[in-house]
Amino acid sequence: MKTMYRTHTCGELNGQHVNEKVTLCGWIQKIRKLGGMTFIDLRDRYGITQLAFNAEQNPDLCKQIEPFGREWVIQVTGIVTERYSKNKNIPTGDIEILVEEIQVLNESLTPPFTIEDESDGGDELRMKYRYLDLRRNPVKNNLMFRHKLGIAIRNYMNNIGFVEIETPFLIGSTPEGARDFVVPSRLTHGEFYALPQSPQTFKQLLMVAGFDRYFQIVKCFRDEDLRSDRQPEFTQVDCEMSFVTQEDILNTFEGLLKYIFKEIKGIDIEPIERITYADAMRFYGSDKPDARFDMRFVELNDVLKHRDFKVFNEAELVVGIVAKGCANYTRKQLDGLTDFVKRPQVGASGLVYVLCQEDGHFKSSVDKFYNQEDLRAVAEKCGAQAGDLILIMAGKTEKTQKQLCELRLEMGNRLGLRKAGEYKLLWVIDFPLLEWDEETQRYYAKHHPFTAPKPEHEAILETEPGKVNANAYDIVINGTEVGGGSIRIHDKNMQKRMFKALGFTEEEAQRQFGFLMNAFQYGAPPHGGIAFGFDRLCSILCDADTIRDFIAFPKNNSARDVMLNIPSPISEAQLKELGLK
Amino acid sequence: MKTMYRTHTCGELNGQHVNEKVTLCGWIQKIRKLGGMTFIDLRDRYGITQLAFNAEQNPDLCKQIEPFGREWVIQVTGIVTERYSKNKNIPTGDIEILVEEIQVLNESLTPPFTIEDESDGGDELRMKYRYLDLRRNPVKNNLMFRHKLGIAIRNYMNNIGFVEIETPFLIGSTPEGARDFVVPSRLTHGEFYALPQSPQTFKQLLMVAGFDRYFQIVKCFRDEDLRSDRQPEFTQVDCEMSFVTQEDILNTFEGLLKYIFKEIKGIDIEPIERITYADAMRFYGSDKPDARFDMRFVELNDVLKHRDFKVFNEAELVVGIVAKGCANYTRKQLDGLTDFVKRPQVGASGLVYVLCQEDGHFKSSVDKFYNQEDLRAVAEKCGAQAGDLILIMAGKTEKTQKQLCELRLEMGNRLGLRKAGEYKLLWVIDFPLLEWDEETQRYYAKHHPFTAPKPEHEAILETEPGKVNANAYDIVINGTEVGGGSIRIHDKNMQKRMFKALGFTEEEAQRQFGFLMNAFQYGAPPHGGIAFGFDRLCSILCDADTIRDFIAFPKNNSARDVMLNIPSPISEAQLKELGLK
Repeated sequence: MKTMYRTHTCGELNGQHVNEKVTLCGWIQKIRKLGGMTFIDLRDRYGITQLAFNAEQNPDLCKQIEPFGREWVIQVTGIVTERYSKNKNIPTGDIEILVEEIQVLNESLTPPFTIEDESDGGDELRMKYRYLDLRRNPVKNNLMFRHKLGIAIRNYMNNIGFVEIETPFLIGSTPEGARDFVVPSRLTHGEFYALPQSPQTFKQLLMVAGFDRYFQIVKCFRDEDLRSDRQPEFTQVDCEMSFVTQEDILNTFEGLLKYIFKEIKGIDIEPIERITYADAMRFYGSDKPDARFDMRFVELNDVLKHRDFKVFNEAELVVGIVAKGCANYTRKQLDGLTDFVKRPQVGASGLVYVLCQEDGHFKSSVDKFYNQEDLRAVAEKCGAQAGDLILIMAGKTEKTQKQLCELRLEMGNRLGLRKAGEYKLLWVIDFPLLEWDEETQRYYAKHHPFTAPKPEHEAILETEPGKVNANAYDIVINGTEVGGGSIRIHDKNMQKRMFKALGFTEEEAQRQFGFLMNAFQYGAPPHGGIAFGFDRLCSILCDADTIRDFIAFPKNNSARDVMLNIPSPISEAQLKELGLK
Repeated sequence: MKTMYRTHTCGELNGQHVNEKVTLCGWIQKIRKLGGMTFIDLRDRYGITQLAFNAEQNPDLCKQIEPFGREWVIQVTGIVTERYSKNKNIPTGDIEILVEEIQVLNESLTPPFTIEDESDGGDELRMKYRYLDLRRNPVKNNLMFRHKLGIAIRNYMNNIGFVEIETPFLIGSTPEGARDFVVPSRLTHGEFYALPQSPQTFKQLLMVAGFDRYFQIVKCFRDEDLRSDRQPEFTQVDCEMSFVTQEDILNTFEGLLKYIFKEIKGIDIEPIERITYADAMRFYGSDKPDARFDMRFVELNDVLKHRDFKVFNEAELVVGIVAKGCANYTRKQLDGLTDFVKRPQVGASGLVYVLCQEDGHFKSSVDKFYNQEDLRAVAEKCGAQAGDLILIMAGKTEKTQKQLCELRLEMGNRLGLRKAGEYKLLWVIDFPLLEWDEETQRYYAKHHPFTAPKPEHEAILETEPGKVNANAYDIVINGTEVGGGSIRIHDKNMQKRMFKALGFTEEEAQRQFGFLMNAFQYGAPPHGGIAFGFDRLCSILCDADTIRDFIAFPKNNSARDVMLNIPSPISEAQLKELGLK
C-alpha cells in the first residue's frame, strides 16, 4: 500500500520497525494531552497508529497541531519508537511514531456524530452522512466482508466450471408479480424498458444457448412498498445449470455453502438436512424454519377434541409445542406469552398452557375441561417431561401454524436457543407449484411461471392444480430464506399449459414471453437453477439484523437516498425529450 | 460436470476411456451416413464427440434416429471405442461412442442459420435468435474469454488490497455531459431516479469514507445516439485510490495490465511508454495513437513555406509522414490515397506527395513550385530515404492533424503495420483540463468536472483556463482508448472554482453536486483513479472489431433488443401508477 504519500499504512507497524523513519497518512481519530506530551490516534482503513509529540523537544510541532481536530486528514513523518505503555488490543500497540514533520492534507468540520464502533448518531443522520458512517469499523468491516464473500463465491463457481455472464439491465416489463421500475425510451416515445427483477429468462436463454453452467452476481430491482428489510435494488448470486435434476443442484450448491462456511467463517457445516414444504409447515408452521432448535409442532386433535371445550372442538387444528424446563413459569410469564400471541402482528385470540409439574401433576389453563388423565395423554403425545411447559393453539390450520410459529420463535429467543454464531442450514423441498389467491380468485406461481411441475404431477395440472408439486427448493439458514430455485420447464407445450393455469391468454403469454417459448422450439436442454440473496447471505453470516448495513449506499423505507436527496424532479427539457408529462 | 443426466461432457473423452460405458448429452451438430454407418457429431459447451450407429448390428436404433435433425437435444449411452480414422483436430478425435441407448430430450426446428464458426446468418437474424448465435464457437469463446478476464482482474485487484464495493444504480440525474436514462418514481410522482453513467461520485465518496482502494466491475448507462460501436449499457472496471499521485496510479495499473497480458494472452509486455497529450497530437494527430508503427508526423512549415505555393503558404500547418519503401507507388495508387483523404469521413481537400526515387531524384505533385533542392530538404527533414514516399497535408492545425492521422492509419493498414496479435500500450498524459466549445461558447471538462488541475496551473484557472493541464491520463492500446482517469479535486473550494470555470452557478453546483462538496468538508483525502472499458478491453485483447460480440445480449444501433422487441409500450395502469403521460 506504499505510495508517494506514505511509506506504510496505519495498520502495519510493530516492534520490528523500531527506529525506522516512516511516513503515514490518515484521519485523526483522537487527540489526548498528557502533561508535556500530546498523542494523536491516526486512523486509516488498515488500523490505528499512535503519534507522539513532545512539547519540550519540539515546541513548534506542538504549536502546529494545536488547531487540529477530529477527522482532519494529515501526513506525518517520524521515527518508529517502542511505546512506554503498550496497548495489547491492537496490532500496532507496541509502537508509536515520534513525529518530526506534519502536513495537513485536508481539514474537517466536526462530524455530526462520533466515528466510533457505537456511534451517538441516529439512523437518519448516519444515512445522510453515509460517507462518515462508512468510516465506522462495524460498517466498514461489513463491506469488507461482502467483498471477501464475493471473491470466494466467484472463485468457487469458476473452479467448478460456471461462467459468469452479464445479462442486460434494460429489458422488457413483465407485469406478473412484483412491480418493475421502468425506463422511458428517448428514441421511441411512449415505449419503455424495465429494470430486471431477476435475470430469470436470460439465464434460461443462456441454457438454450448451451452455456451449461452460468452464474452472475448481479443487481436486481423491485419497485415494491418496502418492508422493514427490503431494498429497491438488491444483489443476487444467480445460477443455472443444464442437464441436471434437483439432486444435482442441491449437491452442487451444498458444495458452495460448505466452502463459504469453511473459507469465510472457518466452520465445517453438517450435511444439509432436507425437509418437504408440507413437513416444514406441519412441524414448524413455516416454509423457513429456524432449525437451530427442535421444539417441533405436535398435532393434538385426537387427544384434545373429546371433551366439552368448544374452542378446540371447533378448530381445524389443535397443535402444541414443548418448552423444556419451563414448568416453573410464573402466572405473569404465562400471561406475557398470551399477550405476545394476541399482538396484532401474531393475531391469535388466545393460548392454552399445560405445566408438567415436577411432582407428576399437570396444571393447565383449561383444567375446567380436561382432567389429569387427559393432560397426561397430551404430555405423552408431545413427549413432554416433568418440568416442561406445553403451549397449545387452535383454529384454522394455516393461520394457527403461522401463529404457533411466531410463538415457537419467541420461546426460542427467551430460552436462548437461537444462538448467534450457530448455523443450521435446511433445504426445503417439494414446494407446491401454484398458490390460490382468494382475493383475485386465481392461481399464482409459488416460485415463478417457469418452474416445472414434478413429472408425476404433470397429468393433473389442469384438473387439480392445487395438488401439483414442483421440483422447487429453498435454502434456509437459521430461519431465513437465503436462496431458492427450481427445475425449469424446457418444453414449449408444458410452458403453454403453465401460462394457461396462471390465467394468461395465449396472446398475453406470447407478448410477454414469446421470445422464451420461441427459444424452447430450438433445442432447449433440461435445466434448473437457484438464486441466493447476496445481501441477505452477508447479513446472516454476520449474525446481523439488517441487510442495510451490508450495502454501501442503501435507500430508506421510502426508497429515498437521503444523502443524495433522490428521487428528484428532472428538467422540463429532459421530460420533453422523453415525451413525458 | 457429471450430473444425473450424463457421466461425461462431449469434450473430455479420449483414448484412455476406451471400453468405458458412458452417457453424454448435447446438441446434434451434424448427421452423416456412410454405407451402413450413421455418424452424429454431438456438441456441448465443452466440445464435440462422434456417435456411431451400425445399421446391421442395431437396426432399431438406426430407425429411431431417422427423424433426428440439427440442434435436437439428445442423451446417449454407449461404449467408448477407438476410431478407425482419427481426427487430430479435436481432443476427442481418437474415439467415438458406439451407441446402445438414445433418448430425445428435446426436438428442434431447423435453425434459421447454420450453427458454424462462419454462419450464413446476417447480423439482424443472428441478433433476433441470439440464443442460437451464442451456440457458435466464436461468440461462445468471446463470452468465455470475458469471464476469464473478469476473474483475473478481480483476483489481481483483491490481491493488491482493492475492495470491490457495489454502488447504487438508482441515483440522481446529472444533466452535464451525455444523457441519462431516467426512472420515474412511483411513490413520489414527478420525481425520477437516473441510471449511472459511471460510479464517479460514489467512488469519490468511498475515498472520503476511507476505503483507500476501491474497484468495481459494473454496468454503466448512456442514453446517446449510438455510434457504430457503442452500447446504451456497457461495463466498466472502475477503480479509485487514496493518498496517491498520478505516478502511483500509472504504476499500479501498469501492473494490472502486465498481469492481464501475461495471464490471459501469455505475453510479456514492455514497460508502457508515456507521451503527453501535446506530443500525441503533434506526432500522431490523435490522443489515442496506434503506436504499433512509427510513421510520426514531421512539421514542414519551415522547409515548404518559402516558395510560391499558396496552399502551403496560407496553411497554419504543413505536415508530412514517410511511407517506407513506397516510392514505387503507381499513379493509380497515389490517386487512390488522394481519394481516401477526400472522402467525407476524412474531409481533406487534397494531398501532396514526394517520391524519393532510388536514383536520388525526387518526383512530386508540386514539382511546379519546388525544385529538387527544396524536395531534398523536405526528405532530409523527414528522414526519408531513397525508395520512400512522403505524404504531405496542410491547413488549420487541428483539422490537418486529424486528417493526416486518418491517412497514417490507412498507410499502416496498407503496409500491414497494424498487426493482429501485436500489442502496443501507451499512457497519454497531461491532458488539458478544459476544452472550449465554439457552439455553446463555453468550456467543458475534457475528462469530467472532478478532475484536478495540475498544482502548478491552479493559479491560472480563472485567467487562462485553456492553458490549464490536468493530471489526467488515458491508457491506449493499438490506437484505442481502453481506459482513462485522473487525480481528483479533494478540496471544496477548488471544486467550487472548477464548477465556476464550467459555467455552473453556485445553486446549480450545489443542487447537483452538493452532497460531494459537503463530503469534502469532512476530511477528504487526496485521491485519484481510473476506469477501463471492460467490453472494449475484451475486444482489443481478442483483436476483434466490435464490442457487441463480447456482450451476451447486445442492443442494436437504435438501442433496441430485437430478440425481446424492446423497448415496448407499458399498460395504462402502469403509466397511471407512475403518474406519467
